Amino acid sequence: MAGSSYGRIFQITTWGESHGKALGVVIDGCPAGLFLCEDDIQLFLDRRKPGKTHISTPRKEEDKVEILSGIFDGKTTGTPISLIIHNTSQRSSDYSEIANYYRPGHADYTFEQKYGFRDYRGGGRSSARETIGRVAAGAIASKLLSSLGIHLTAYTRSIGPVAIDENAFEAAAILETATCMPDRAASERAEAYLAGCMKDYDSAGGVIECKIDGCPAGIGEPVFDKLDAALAKAVMSIGAVKAVEIGDGIQVSTRRGSSNNDAFIIKDGKVAKETNHAGGILGGISDGSAIILRAHVKPTPSIFQKQHTVNRQGEEIEIAIKGRHDPVVVPRAVVVVESMVAITLLDAMLTNMGARVENLAKIYGK
Amino acid sequence: MAGSSYGRIFQITTWGESHGKALGVVIDGCPAGLFLCEDDIQLFLDRRKPGKTHISTPRKEEDKVEILSGIFDGKTTGTPISLIIHNTSQRSSDYSEIANYYRPGHADYTFEQKYGFRDYRGGGRSSARETIGRVAAGAIASKLLSSLGIHLTAYTRSIGPVAIDENAFEAAAILETATCMPDRAASERAEAYLAGCMKDYDSAGGVIECKIDGCPAGIGEPVFDKLDAALAKAVMSIGAVKAVEIGDGIQVSTRRGSSNNDAFIIKDGKVAKETNHAGGILGGISDGSAIILRAHVKPTPSIFQKQHTVNRQGEEIEIAIKGRHDPVVVPRAVVVVESMVAITLLDAMLTNMGARVENLAKIYGK
Amino acid sequence: MAGSSYGRIFQITTWGESHGKALGVVIDGCPAGLFLCEDDIQLFLDRRKPGKTHISTPRKEEDKVEILSGIFDGKTTGTPISLIIHNTSQRSSDYSEIANYYRPGHADYTFEQKYGFRDYRGGGRSSARETIGRVAAGAIASKLLSSLGIHLTAYTRSIGPVAIDENAFEAAAILETATCMPDRAASERAEAYLAGCMKDYDSAGGVIECKIDGCPAGIGEPVFDKLDAALAKAVMSIGAVKAVEIGDGIQVSTRRGSSNNDAFIIKDGKVAKETNHAGGILGGISDGSAIILRAHVKPTPSIFQKQHTVNRQGEEIEIAIKGRHDPVVVPRAVVVVESMVAITLLDAMLTNMGARVENLAKIYGK
Amino acid sequence: MAGSSYGRIFQITTWGESHGKALGVVIDGCPAGLFLCEDDIQLFLDRRKPGKTHISTPRKEEDKVEILSGIFDGKTTGTPISLIIHNTSQRSSDYSEIANYYRPGHADYTFEQKYGFRDYRGGGRSSARETIGRVAAGAIASKLLSSLGIHLTAYTRSIGPVAIDENAFEAAAILETATCMPDRAASERAEAYLAGCMKDYDSAGGVIECKIDGCPAGIGEPVFDKLDAALAKAVMSIGAVKAVEIGDGIQVSTRRGSSNNDAFIIKDGKVAKETNHAGGILGGISDGSAIILRAHVKPTPSIFQKQHTVNRQGEEIEIAIKGRHDPVVVPRAVVVVESMVAITLLDAMLTNMGARVENLAKIYGK
Repeated sequence: MAGSSYGRIFQITTWGESHGKALGVVIDGCPAGLFLCEDDIQLFLDRRKPGKTHISTPRKEEDKVEILSGIFDGKTTGTPISLIIHNTSQRSSDYSEIANYYRPGHADYTFEQKYGFRDYRGGGRSSARETIGRVAAGAIASKLLSSLGIHLTAYTRSIGPVAIDENAFEAAAILETATCMPDRAASERAEAYLAGCMKDYDSAGGVIECKIDGCPAGIGEPVFDKLDAALAKAVMSIGAVKAVEIGDGIQVSTRRGSSNNDAFIIKDGKVAKETNHAGGILGGISDGSAIILRAHVKPTPSIFQKQHTVNRQGEEIEIAIKGRHDPVVVPRAVVVVESMVAITLLDAMLTNMGARVENLAKIYGK
Repeated sequence: MAGSSYGRIFQITTWGESHGKALGVVIDGCPAGLFLCEDDIQLFLDRRKPGKTHISTPRKEEDKVEILSGIFDGKTTGTPISLIIHNTSQRSSDYSEIANYYRPGHADYTFEQKYGFRDYRGGGRSSARETIGRVAAGAIASKLLSSLGIHLTAYTRSIGPVAIDENAFEAAAILETATCMPDRAASERAEAYLAGCMKDYDSAGGVIECKIDGCPAGIGEPVFDKLDAALAKAVMSIGAVKAVEIGDGIQVSTRRGSSNNDAFIIKDGKVAKETNHAGGILGGISDGSAIILRAHVKPTPSIFQKQHTVNRQGEEIEIAIKGRHDPVVVPRAVVVVESMVAITLLDAMLTNMGARVENLAKIYGK
Repeated sequence: MAGSSYGRIFQITTWGESHGKALGVVIDGCPAGLFLCEDDIQLFLDRRKPGKTHISTPRKEEDKVEILSGIFDGKTTGTPISLIIHNTSQRSSDYSEIANYYRPGHADYTFEQKYGFRDYRGGGRSSARETIGRVAAGAIASKLLSSLGIHLTAYTRSIGPVAIDENAFEAAAILETATCMPDRAASERAEAYLAGCMKDYDSAGGVIECKIDGCPAGIGEPVFDKLDAALAKAVMSIGAVKAVEIGDGIQVSTRRGSSNNDAFIIKDGKVAKETNHAGGILGGISDGSAIILRAHVKPTPSIFQKQHTVNRQGEEIEIAIKGRHDPVVVPRAVVVVESMVAITLLDAMLTNMGARVENLAKIYGK
Repeated sequence: MAGSSYGRIFQITTWGESHGKALGVVIDGCPAGLFLCEDDIQLFLDRRKPGKTHISTPRKEEDKVEILSGIFDGKTTGTPISLIIHNTSQRSSDYSEIANYYRPGHADYTFEQKYGFRDYRGGGRSSARETIGRVAAGAIASKLLSSLGIHLTAYTRSIGPVAIDENAFEAAAILETATCMPDRAASERAEAYLAGCMKDYDSAGGVIECKIDGCPAGIGEPVFDKLDAALAKAVMSIGAVKAVEIGDGIQVSTRRGSSNNDAFIIKDGKVAKETNHAGGILGGISDGSAIILRAHVKPTPSIFQKQHTVNRQGEEIEIAIKGRHDPVVVPRAVVVVESMVAITLLDAMLTNMGARVENLAKIYGK
């Protein structure tokens, strides 16, 4: 089925396996006239690269993007933008053993149940390398949104028990800390926690937060394609995510209406909200406040401890996974969340363009 | 935009406003040959009806469903099933006042920003009455799933601070308690809590849980259309939902891999999992365990306390909402969650039918 | 499957069978702010009504439309417009006999092969009454296009061997002649021809032409969603259509390039074409000239002559179809073609709104 | 917009321009377990290659396909199959002149109107090289259909005034004649006709026919997604096609019902049709007979005669197109038609798998 395509107007299609020749993405429906070069995209890809510090895998993933189509005279032409990233450091020899059993927490068993067999090399299509295409497309969506005054910021909110202090929020730290936390002190504590996990042959989870500033009110469709519903799907479709919150999220279930409602006010002559418990979305449509969401990410399932599982012959066995695995996927997933949010919002904005008859006149009026 | 349609093969389209002549849903792509009558659907609609107890609105909503097409000789024909529910008790006169201001926590402002104006009668399309179509369609999906041995159970997990005790779980209580809790003692405490809210002119939120038993392994698409991603969208698209969890959900972010991974085992000669932290989905594909999700529902935004807001003239004003409003939407939303989950799973199963070449031979083989 | 929905942004879903309680259509994605009332739609429905003359069935089909949702203060709200047309004159008793055999030229056999059984009353979902929903939606699309200066004209070009004389083209005649021909003399000859068919217990086919004036250049998507491809699908999806031509259509296959190419010229200071063999579409995108297409319609399969066929027991039998059937469907299908073209064009225009980055700034610019 | 994707379950996305680095296609939703190698695809690509004879362009287009993903152990894995074909012989220097004017019969003007500018090198995305991706995907669809006993045959039916003699039909000739005609004598006459066109600096059109044998009855969706409607779109979306006929096509408009209806008979113990005017489709659903369609292809718009046109400065000018252009595109488009038909049919079959409740039990039954 078409599970590798996403979006209605700004539509992306990703392809590629962990150990195939290459991975890539085709972006169809990108508006024409956006200045775009490989560096714009590489910037985003570099943010998901491992190896920045001791807490990520020592694998050397070059992940250099090449634009194959859709750009002319330095600008998007409106036709499909095909991007390819060649796999350079994958060695299939590592994976002969796991071909025969199902790793706990991975998709080995479910892929086999669905398709009858699986590409077991590095997880095949279920590898986190699949997100490369998302990030490459997200770079383009972000650049276009940015040109409209819409800016996204994603960061690590917590790793294991270590959360950032919102009062210590420092945007510059996101790209500089090994954890992508906007709080250098918390980042250091998180690194210490991760060092402990590694010593125990274990792994950690965490929380990623994403904020959109500058989004106009009125974006999102009522009923099934609510903006928050679309964002929930976008973010939950990222490998290790197990929960998505919009605005105050899970806290609302224990609140009373009087403390959860955001009062409307007039600010700088415009309608605004006194608080933003709603996270910028009311009735599935953006309200002009910052849009805020959080993704809860599970600990890396590949751990070096001995684990119990089952092999393809239906026997229970003990295994010890080898190879190179991050003790936490959160820092590298930050840019993936940001990318999925950017793609989703841009698509919602393109879809919304015909919401009013007067908008058609603006584009087609004589 | 087509925000009122949902599903790829089992595709539903809902329509209707709170105070229009009627509401309804068209279900296209329901497999032919399912025995279906109005009672099958009415059973589900009655579960979302208000007025069962003192904690829900005294409005009398008849919500009688009528089948207009798609059934012949008592069976679905494979062509669109059109269902209509006439609005009988809506009086537009109640709503003259709110036409001019934006209710906090509601979609009044955002609808106006999107469309330029809004049907203010009872919230128009953004009313919770919109869910009638979802539930009517959910009844059909549930009946079909049930015939395949797949059973859904949704219930209230908590209201405000009052949560069920899992050890006291009693399935029969779901349909019998006013709160739809499967724990009669907790339900009584929750009712007492709600009585307090009402005395304070306030409202409460809560958590709904849904469990799917009997789902085969292998359902769901990798990458963007993961089963959990589809479920997240389905559930987040329900009005007051602000967070969605799959399996252990938000708890995974503070866990270590060693305690979050579910070991594979052999049980009754089949592959199974020792625990089910994953909530029945690995890599976006069902693993044969029970599928479990939770929706966090915000407190009803319509409260009778004085609130601050803005009117259409851009003035800040104080308002006091009148009318009939539930102090909590959770009990009535339980069947909505169950319906959206059923629709989503059935659609995923229909989409998955061509996952293997051998499946085509099973259907088309000579 | 979702075969009863059509369109990406302006999305319609039709439902209903020939002898069910009602037929209808849900239009989702209609831009907000269009003035619309039942009369706007009834005007179109009346054009497809039978009984105008002796050449159409004496059945009395009232086909009165009722708007159930999506309109407030006389304008479209942007939310789904649900339209219902009650069946008033259908009597199921007529159809007991055909339940057991397959009418030649009808979908009896194929529906049974697909779904396992069929609603045999009047053809069920495969009846031409299915087009009621298309026409109701087409009325809305046409009104919106008209407000943008885009006007559609569909008419009968030929019936059997009788074709119009283009030099005698008189637009007013389309709505006044029994054949919907824009040539009164040809219409009389066609009526005489049809009288002959009826005397012979036989039926006739014909050709419908549709012209779009005022369509801006630049509409349509390259590759698979070319405007001509979309129009071909739209028109071929109408029951009896067996061929679709764009511009000069089948004539191009015997032409040379030198006589088929349309030279670009400057006319009134604008780029135009000296001729219009292409029918207003180049590379799948509108070129600013009139868009022209033709549909070839087969003769009504229900004829009163004795015919050979097979029954459900697998026996060859002779049958004589009874009932009320038009000797030609062409005149009533004219407005169906016009409707499908209007819906398709409007959807293409809505989809195209984000083709350029500068268009986003026009809608979302600060 | 997403105009470069096609299909609901078997979904293809093509990309690439005439003079870009490469062209390609991503096929998502191909069932798992199909044996597939590059040779399977190359076989189809070679059929659309130029240079087989004097009647096609002397350009040397290697068009070697490379599989980048989706295959493991020689079989499709169910995940996206990414195919790339590098451009090797394109020289952009040839196209400096046409950057400034609009070639008659080409999409230069319309692309510029849609997107604001265009990639003028060899027509960019509107080049016939765009069909490479379609053919590569068509090879896969054909192989899968073939494994189900469904076989497609496409061929040239006529070029200019020269048509094949059906009595001289010889399937082997299709791949052996320069014209792809299944009639060697007609092919020679067509070649002579084309030689004349070339001498006159002119070009020719023609007709392509495609036949599907072995398609089971019951495929196709009623109403908008009729099988013939889907095929019409598929074929009309190919560059130069201006008309599509199903079965007897345009001839039906002058026929009477008595001679157009196909009588049902019993043949070899099964329901069959005595004749096949319908072309294997009734009510939009396959009837078990051979499916037959025809595409009318316009003459190559690039001719070497002097032509009148307009430049980007809005001046009328005379031009003479240079370069390498086929005098007829029909022979090379034969495999494109066959590919689009194969893709469309396979997608319809995958979509139809859930048409009956009993089919779900066949796949998911316990």
